[in-house]
Amino acid sequence: MRFTIDKEQFLKSLNAASKAVPSKSASPYLTNLKLELNEKGLEILGSNGDISIKATVPYMVNDREIIRNVGLGSTLVNSRILTEIVRNVEGGELSVEVIDEAVMKIDDSRSSFKLNCIKAEEYPDIDLERSGTEIKISCYAFASLVDQSAFAASNKDVRPILTALHLEAENGKLVATATDSARLARKEITIDDNTRFACNVPAKTVSDIVHMFDNAKEVIVSVSPKKILFDFDNVIVASRLIPGEYPVTRSIIPTVFNYTLEANAAELLSAMNRVRILSADTEPVVTITMREEEVEVSAKSDTNGSALEKISTYQYAGERLSVSFNSQFVIDAIKALKCEDVTICFMGEMKPFVVKNPKDNSVVELITPMRTF
Amino acid sequence: MRFTIDKEQFLKSLNAASKAVPSKSASPYLTNLKLELNEKGLEILGSNGDISIKATVPYMVNDREIIRNVGLGSTLVNSRILTEIVRNVEGGELSVEVIDEAVMKIDDSRSSFKLNCIKAEEYPDIDLERSGTEIKISCYAFASLVDQSAFAASNKDVRPILTALHLEAENGKLVATATDSARLARKEITIDDNTRFACNVPAKTVSDIVHMFDNAKEVIVSVSPKKILFDFDNVIVASRLIPGEYPVTRSIIPTVFNYTLEANAAELLSAMNRVRILSADTEPVVTITMREEEVEVSAKSDTNGSALEKISTYQYAGERLSVSFNSQFVIDAIKALKCEDVTICFMGEMKPFVVKNPKDNSVVELITPMRTF
Repeated sequence: MRFTIDKEQFLKSLNAASKAVPSKSASPYLTNLKLELNEKGLEILGSNGDISIKATVPYMVNDREIIRNVGLGSTLVNSRILTEIVRNVEGGELSVEVIDEAVMKIDDSRSSFKLNCIKAEEYPDIDLERSGTEIKISCYAFASLVDQSAFAASNKDVRPILTALHLEAENGKLVATATDSARLARKEITIDDNTRFACNVPAKTVSDIVHMFDNAKEVIVSVSPKKILFDFDNVIVASRLIPGEYPVTRSIIPTVFNYTLEANAAELLSAMNRVRILSADTEPVVTITMREEEVEVSAKSDTNGSALEKISTYQYAGERLSVSFNSQFVIDAIKALKCEDVTICFMGEMKPFVVKNPKDNSVVELITPMRTF
Repeated sequence: MRFTIDKEQFLKSLNAASKAVPSKSASPYLTNLKLELNEKGLEILGSNGDISIKATVPYMVNDREIIRNVGLGSTLVNSRILTEIVRNVEGGELSVEVIDEAVMKIDDSRSSFKLNCIKAEEYPDIDLERSGTEIKISCYAFASLVDQSAFAASNKDVRPILTALHLEAENGKLVATATDSARLARKEITIDDNTRFACNVPAKTVSDIVHMFDNAKEVIVSVSPKKILFDFDNVIVASRLIPGEYPVTRSIIPTVFNYTLEANAAELLSAMNRVRILSADTEPVVTITMREEEVEVSAKSDTNGSALEKISTYQYAGERLSVSFNSQFVIDAIKALKCEDVTICFMGEMKPFVVKNPKDNSVVELITPMRTF
């Protein structure tokens, strides 16, 4: 294998593929990237077994030659070292040549590296073929679907299914649901066709993937029984799915409420952030006490003392109500909604409540209150 | 105790004093700050036993009233919680009142906090009186003294004396020396009078202290047998000293050399930073090979391969010489010198070498080479 390559394009693809590469691995081959120069360009593949990323440097970008002086071939080379070298060289172009399937020579105008490398055949077989149900979505829409829901998934492995983002396509809608059993987030987007599928993607993985979209416009998502595949802008990402039945959550979300608070999101956030300073070493429980004449946010700690703040911009409809909750859940929910005003709908002191964007019905954040006595 | 205080000035002093406060402590009182409002202003004291910091908010700053509506007194209050609260309130002024020596009320226009607090008498006695030999130095000069030397101290507790920065004042000079036994840094500054003292200050502590100087112009350093005290700009910092005799280092530094390399500091740094990528998981050993016609920086790793870079801007006088070293030591030394060109003087392949600023004789960095076979 031999090629001369534009440094920035090489680095961009190395950065993408190396995201999947573990720093340590039981299989020594997985700490490597697989580089393959073929008729499509330079394909760079990284994998940790659960998630695999293939980024392709094309021969041409906007009529500019990116790879030249080529001899096709493939090899395995340490991901971290190769990426660090390409990041740190000063020249705009690099010459790469693999000699005797054992040494990769990398030269720019100043530096000369000889990296030990391994035959490409040693790399595990990784299936990155699209199969199963396919759907093409705007990256922006899919990223908002994930960003507004995946944060509510569990980060504990006690019930693996709760670490998933549940994706369900049906009747022209794609619905994403995540819950750690104390809170739930649900977001839907409209999809064009009558695609039908349901799957459970690791929530952390799919969050990482949408942050790789960068300037990509559209993503092709394909779902098959054991894997989900994302294809966008010269990058293909495959992730395993989490097996098992996702809990039925649709009926949990209440629709009739007795109390409704509408408040300025920024003011509510900063009030909660201040009063919860008191619960420094414990769960950051905050209480919100609402009457039509007054809304107060407060927190109390046996060790540290108490804090109280009045909200100035609000509208409240309902009897006097006091609800306590893990403030992190409400802060996460409000931030995910990305709106100026926020509506919180309650059914009672100990009943789950809903945090909503009054201007957007496509997303619902549900939170279970806490007892404070 | 009661006062109304400017938020920014209060926060500045809280930030300073809380730097000494441990997040956990065997003595529960030490996670608190001691606040005392007396005729000098609001004195805020934090300590971890080894280092103590007292920051004073004065009544007036540049004819502007900072503290008003006062009732003298003192109390102990949780450092982290108080500092976080003052950092996060929105108003420009805070009212503080201690009620029954048990509750500190803090109010701004929006928020109201009641912090549990403790009688000031519970706090350990901390000696912040100036005593012993005293010297007044420009903060800039003292900070450069410390920044160019303290980094070479050991960060391992095997020989506690090597974790110290050795300060010695004699014959109109103040000399700072640090060594971890594989490298040594020595910097001197001129002092006005005939002050004489010698002491061993924890190197990490004194580095932290000079970074607190901020806009202060002068610092009064006073050295007594068991403690060193720094007094600058409404802040007093006291540190314990490290007991024991500092090793005699003056005779170690060679003065006659057989080989001299002068090179551009930035070029040498980036060449070392690139080639040492190869030694990712081991000590970052780099070899420099010098002839009058060519200077090369290289690194080798059995696992990863090898790297080589030629230096373009240099002057070398001497026979061909090849020296290997821990590149981190040379990088630290060059960075500490803060100069455009750097001079490295060698006596031989396995003899300690000296890294110098050709325009500044006040600082010497000595490094022991390594064997690479």
